[in-house]
Amino acid sequence: MFVNRMPRFEVLDADSLDVLDRGWRRILTEIGIDFGLPESVEAFRAAGQAVDGTVVRLDPEFVLEQVAKAPREFDVRARNQAHSLHVGGDHMVFASVYGPPFAREGDVRREATGDDFRRLVMLSQQFEELDTPGGVICEPNDLPLDSRHLDMTLALQTLADKPYFGSVTSGDNARDSIRMSEILFGGREAIERDPVMFAIVNVNSPLRYDGRMLEALHAYAEAAQPVIVTPFLLMGTMAPVSIPAAIAQQTAEAFAGIALMQLLRPGTPVLLGSFLSTTNMQSGSPNFGGPESALGLYCTGQIARRYELPWRAGGGALTSSQTVDAQAAYEGLNTMLPAFLAGANLVMHAAGWLESGLVSCFEKMVVDVEILRTLQAEFTPLTVDEESLAFDAHLEVGQGGHFLGAAHTLTRFRECFYRPLLSSSDNFERWLRNGGLDARARATEIWTRMLDEYEPPALDEAVAAELEEYVARRRRELGD
Amino acid sequence: MFVNRMPRFEVLDADSLDVLDRGWRRILTEIGIDFGLPESVEAFRAAGQAVDGTVVRLDPEFVLEQVAKAPREFDVRARNQAHSLHVGGDHMVFASVYGPPFAREGDVRREATGDDFRRLVMLSQQFEELDTPGGVICEPNDLPLDSRHLDMTLALQTLADKPYFGSVTSGDNARDSIRMSEILFGGREAIERDPVMFAIVNVNSPLRYDGRMLEALHAYAEAAQPVIVTPFLLMGTMAPVSIPAAIAQQTAEAFAGIALMQLLRPGTPVLLGSFLSTTNMQSGSPNFGGPESALGLYCTGQIARRYELPWRAGGGALTSSQTVDAQAAYEGLNTMLPAFLAGANLVMHAAGWLESGLVSCFEKMVVDVEILRTLQAEFTPLTVDEESLAFDAHLEVGQGGHFLGAAHTLTRFRECFYRPLLSSSDNFERWLRNGGLDARARATEIWTRMLDEYEPPALDEAVAAELEEYVARRRRELGD
Repeated sequence: MFVNRMPRFEVLDADSLDVLDRGWRRILTEIGIDFGLPESVEAFRAAGQAVDGTVVRLDPEFVLEQVAKAPREFDVRARNQAHSLHVGGDHMVFASVYGPPFAREGDVRREATGDDFRRLVMLSQQFEELDTPGGVICEPNDLPLDSRHLDMTLALQTLADKPYFGSVTSGDNARDSIRMSEILFGGREAIERDPVMFAIVNVNSPLRYDGRMLEALHAYAEAAQPVIVTPFLLMGTMAPVSIPAAIAQQTAEAFAGIALMQLLRPGTPVLLGSFLSTTNMQSGSPNFGGPESALGLYCTGQIARRYELPWRAGGGALTSSQTVDAQAAYEGLNTMLPAFLAGANLVMHAAGWLESGLVSCFEKMVVDVEILRTLQAEFTPLTVDEESLAFDAHLEVGQGGHFLGAAHTLTRFRECFYRPLLSSSDNFERWLRNGGLDARARATEIWTRMLDEYEPPALDEAVAAELEEYVARRRRELGD
Repeated sequence: MFVNRMPRFEVLDADSLDVLDRGWRRILTEIGIDFGLPESVEAFRAAGQAVDGTVVRLDPEFVLEQVAKAPREFDVRARNQAHSLHVGGDHMVFASVYGPPFAREGDVRREATGDDFRRLVMLSQQFEELDTPGGVICEPNDLPLDSRHLDMTLALQTLADKPYFGSVTSGDNARDSIRMSEILFGGREAIERDPVMFAIVNVNSPLRYDGRMLEALHAYAEAAQPVIVTPFLLMGTMAPVSIPAAIAQQTAEAFAGIALMQLLRPGTPVLLGSFLSTTNMQSGSPNFGGPESALGLYCTGQIARRYELPWRAGGGALTSSQTVDAQAAYEGLNTMLPAFLAGANLVMHAAGWLESGLVSCFEKMVVDVEILRTLQAEFTPLTVDEESLAFDAHLEVGQGGHFLGAAHTLTRFRECFYRPLLSSSDNFERWLRNGGLDARARATEIWTRMLDEYEPPALDEAVAAELEEYVARRRRELGD
């Protein structure tokens, strides 16, 4: 796992943090949050909060008491222990893209399929920079709607041996993911003791949680699995056109969900989620990778540390670009680098996101892994000591010489610099001789080769059979 | 001008800074710097430094006394006062690409010409994010070698009205640039009082200044024009394969040149230059845009602030990529964003650099200007106050509504978010209808349009005639 031991980039002073603090308190107290599930409303009522129909007005001090029950750091177990994760502190978890209905490979853009889903999970397993394939790495549109969550969970469990995300499309679907995790990890007690999966619960912003997401939140709280509570804020549509207003809203919404989690099961692991970008006010389209998202990440990091919560950065490689071009790369890096600077603990959409999240793209995944590798090297502190000064090398080379043959170089040349996966520094003639391929074309070669080299991680046959059996039975029950 | 009021990203603690301090002192004292010009050696000898042939061993305390004579901040005057620059403090100057022998537009890569030179200067004039076209925006290979510095200076002076860079290819050429600046700005006294140009003096690293560069340095020191003293460090060839060693070397080399400037004319403006990247140890090619350069920038910023010198970041948009693809963009942003974080005062190669500096590219210039605009917005501090909390907007919209029609939005929608120059967030169908152009193709449209809209800035006819006359006379004298 990558541990970010570099400094945090903090842009808010104490006064600004206080203003934001007043902001979220006022939203919770004076406007309140709409909860679309009676059990959620009842939990708040029972805890003494003001309820008006489905709207709960929350006492900020009560909310902070609940938030304080969430663990600052926790572990998530993988079936391959080498892939288990620590969440919080300086640790960073990187998850693949989540949610797109379309897939792109090369010039082909199409409705995503189960085959795309499986291949993207296999690639996520292959790239060691990715800590988890996430969950809905693309929407497998060719599989029956009612039961596809079973196919997705099975693929995540068997094609990779990293932690994964459970279904959140309903309480029943969440319980399927939980039940399948019990099978994989040896029962309910085992997964309650050591969480094995994440669940991403979005707020239906502004200020509303919908019923199905809440059912899932309740199910995961009961099973003590970590939930990433994420306000979904495109400023201009789901939030005001002001970053401080959006941050206050994000805090209010996330704290309400986190408080609910802690009411349902005190001490359940949670993450403060952030997904903050802008609406193009000319076209109404969402814009990703711009300056507002970066600023939002810095603010979110400071708030998460103030309240001692692990937190999720909206995305690692967000872009509005329609293809794997320069825009896709600069927008992607302009969300990923700020996530490192802000000290995010979990980075969603860290690889493969294209076209404002409508497309899971194989080439983009390779580009993003290159960015990720680069930044992991870039956020590794320098060792500055007498040895690293290499004074002997200067003595040896003197004035006007070169260091290629210096003893210091010869003993270090293999490991001294970052070695790229995708980037080329070939001179023009050599590059032309090798086909004159741009980064996108080279990315195709890389992911194709990595899929060729893929081998499924070993899995106990009895467990595999039990999982298949569960899926088959549930599929029948669901009529698919 | 852009003023970077965001925090600095600092990665070195006090102990590390002390180690680096010992490093550069030891290089200067025990190894020394080779100066390829007798007048330079003589200046150091007269000041009591140890001379052995062409090598000068420098007393670090003497060096620091000289460095302390350099101004912390200074102004550079443009012929259009609105384009005059302040160098130092929180101010950032952005200069176009400098030096490439080739040009690329679209799919055409060729030896650069005088026409390319003029068009790239005109574009630099058009983009308000670029504070100066720089100097050798590309090498005009179709112009006679001996006199092309005259054509370049004339183009920089007449096609743009921003500060520019003078020739450094020899003492005589530097004096031509100075003399032409005297004509443009009203005489020697005027330009000595208010500097009007920059000169970039590279070190022939390791630890050597060549004679022609030193002639130029002497000429600019005499004329009191700011010199950017820049060690040229590709680790693995011109520096050891260790960032701390390279930073110690950079400091030693730059301080030696800055000390010389201050010996020649105390108080002359200078910048500490940094140009630090790696050699690909497999192929021997230079690599740009990687993690080492970013770390080097953070270190350089801290050292420059420690010694109260304005400083230059190696490059704003460096890349090894052969074409304007994803690699060009992520490597470019991964040098530009660190330059902002590190608080660079002058960013060379901020737009147009491609192929490890061999190519000046029209499309890349547009991509880089987009990156620059984005980061200028991203490094503008947030105002966090009650007004920006926009509580009334939340009251108006409540739970589950949307903010598109909120009063707060309607009064702000034009200016509330960053508006891109190049990036597209069009949905896929609309993007296809508009031709399905990637960022590179759209960049062609943008620079073509901006060149069409170009109008030369007004210039007094008598001054223009005197400049032309000077160039014509000198060209005859040089036999071209």
